[in-house]
Amino acid sequence: MKITMAHGSGGEETEKLISRIFAAHFQNEILDEMEDAAAVPGAERLALTTDSFVVEPLVFPGGDIGKLGVCGTVNDLLMRGAVPKYLTCGFILEAGTDAAVVEQAAASMAQAAAEAGVLIVAGDTKVVENAHEAGGIVINTAGVGFLHRDVQITPSGIRPGDCLILSGSLGDHHAAILSARMRIENHIRSDVGLLTEPVSILLGEKLAVHAMRDVTRGGLATILSEFAKRSGLTMRIRESALPVHPEVRDFCGILGLDPLTMGNEGKFVAAVDAADAETALKLIRDTACGREAVIIGEVTERAEVPVILETKIGGERVVTPLTGEGLPRIC
Amino acid sequence: MKITMAHGSGGEETEKLISRIFAAHFQNEILDEMEDAAAVPGAERLALTTDSFVVEPLVFPGGDIGKLGVCGTVNDLLMRGAVPKYLTCGFILEAGTDAAVVEQAAASMAQAAAEAGVLIVAGDTKVVENAHEAGGIVINTAGVGFLHRDVQITPSGIRPGDCLILSGSLGDHHAAILSARMRIENHIRSDVGLLTEPVSILLGEKLAVHAMRDVTRGGLATILSEFAKRSGLTMRIRESALPVHPEVRDFCGILGLDPLTMGNEGKFVAAVDAADAETALKLIRDTACGREAVIIGEVTERAEVPVILETKIGGERVVTPLTGEGLPRIC
Repeated sequence: MKITMAHGSGGEETEKLISRIFAAHFQNEILDEMEDAAAVPGAERLALTTDSFVVEPLVFPGGDIGKLGVCGTVNDLLMRGAVPKYLTCGFILEAGTDAAVVEQAAASMAQAAAEAGVLIVAGDTKVVENAHEAGGIVINTAGVGFLHRDVQITPSGIRPGDCLILSGSLGDHHAAILSARMRIENHIRSDVGLLTEPVSILLGEKLAVHAMRDVTRGGLATILSEFAKRSGLTMRIRESALPVHPEVRDFCGILGLDPLTMGNEGKFVAAVDAADAETALKLIRDTACGREAVIIGEVTERAEVPVILETKIGGERVVTPLTGEGLPRIC
Repeated sequence: MKITMAHGSGGEETEKLISRIFAAHFQNEILDEMEDAAAVPGAERLALTTDSFVVEPLVFPGGDIGKLGVCGTVNDLLMRGAVPKYLTCGFILEAGTDAAVVEQAAASMAQAAAEAGVLIVAGDTKVVENAHEAGGIVINTAGVGFLHRDVQITPSGIRPGDCLILSGSLGDHHAAILSARMRIENHIRSDVGLLTEPVSILLGEKLAVHAMRDVTRGGLATILSEFAKRSGLTMRIRESALPVHPEVRDFCGILGLDPLTMGNEGKFVAAVDAADAETALKLIRDTACGREAVIIGEVTERAEVPVILETKIGGERVVTPLTGEGLPRIC
């Protein structure tokens, strides 16, 4: 079945699409009430976030747009130190999209939501015209997390001496998407995934985690630039410490890409008090998604430049945020 | 300035777009922190909703996509009996969109949010390719409202004998959009607006409001069908009572459109206990957006059909939800 403009009319066809695909996969007590707004238990302090997801191809090695849509928003809540609780979900479908692809995305979302322990409590579907009836999907998710009164995790809380821990290898998602687009056959898989496990452990152990950020659009270079800007300090990292899988490194070499500006979808960088850094590293390494975690550098008082990379041959390179398109759009 | 793919890269251009347009207009203490997730005070019980907005033209008589994006989501929260508090906002921009149009949408959103007393606390921007570089905007908003412990407003709470109150005339938004698209010159203006005033007054007076729903996509016919389905009762309305502005009525007559299935963006229908109906009607009529409110019918035990219209000439017509495209897409 192809999605048609009628599926976006708000009438009977919309209702059928919702009940057959979305309600069937997202089924839960709150969503089943089919209200325009869901009523849910709250908390004294909340974390709120939103993200829209566009990716081509919609299904790629390691995941699909549905998994991306849940992991991206859940990870944003985790990075703030919140416990993710609820998602809302807006589907924008181009007329001509195969309903089977929409269903696969919904199934992936449901699976990732269950894994993350969040409920999809409200949804919306719109259909937009597409000149070529080629089809396409944009998914917006907004997330609500419960935030403990005392949790203050934010780049402005970074302190000189903090260690910078990266939870794993760089560039996998970006390289996987580009490979799929360029029809290059390799074994590179997207790292799209939830950061729930390492983050809950770090927070559960009450380690001095000052800031966390998932390494998505713009890559590590952009995240560290933001850390520097928001804290007024300098981030100093070592090139030799940066984990990049050999196949991704080769792929980048051939295409002239820099893993520092490439996007990931299942990695984070944390600024942790030096006293707790080794413990934090060990705990992250004990999790399924953090086995390749490393300390990539330290925070220093503000130097001449905000982010410095010590190169493998002993030099220093200024790291700047991604500018221009840089790389083809992948998330 | 035209929006380019670089504005969606997540790097420096994205940051400039965000700071120059979105941060400038949405400016508030929470958003200014520029976190991936906002931290906000919560409440014991929450209402959550989401909606995506696509409308052509982006600016129309009576409003624009920005105003639509805030009013639609705020109204959904109000319909549940919640006090709207926070919005998240996802912009999906087509490459080639004029930045001035994006700015106008942002300015309208800011104004409507201020009027509604809600804060825009998190945002996201993506840029998608457009074959013709013609430009286009989709806005997704998700809303969080605080819900009092005792408030239970839902179609399943509708009771036999309830009066159905409609807050004003039908079809204005739909007719305004169609007129603009067809380049027909008339004085029809969209009714896009906030329902904050009448809803807060009804709830403040603790009247027995059993259900509320804003009359958007699918029109009154679709909403009443849902009321009937969810309550297991029959909705009986009178054609003679339905308010339709003369110019909208003429417009519909010429094009063969039915105001019952046309979308509005600033009207709601409420099922109110008969004992409180006259008081509720008076209170709604005292508000700026409810001056033309009327009792359009009543709820009865389940009859043979779920929604019945008593026609002006004394007959009865079965009212069914909108099917097919019905009408060109307007929201």
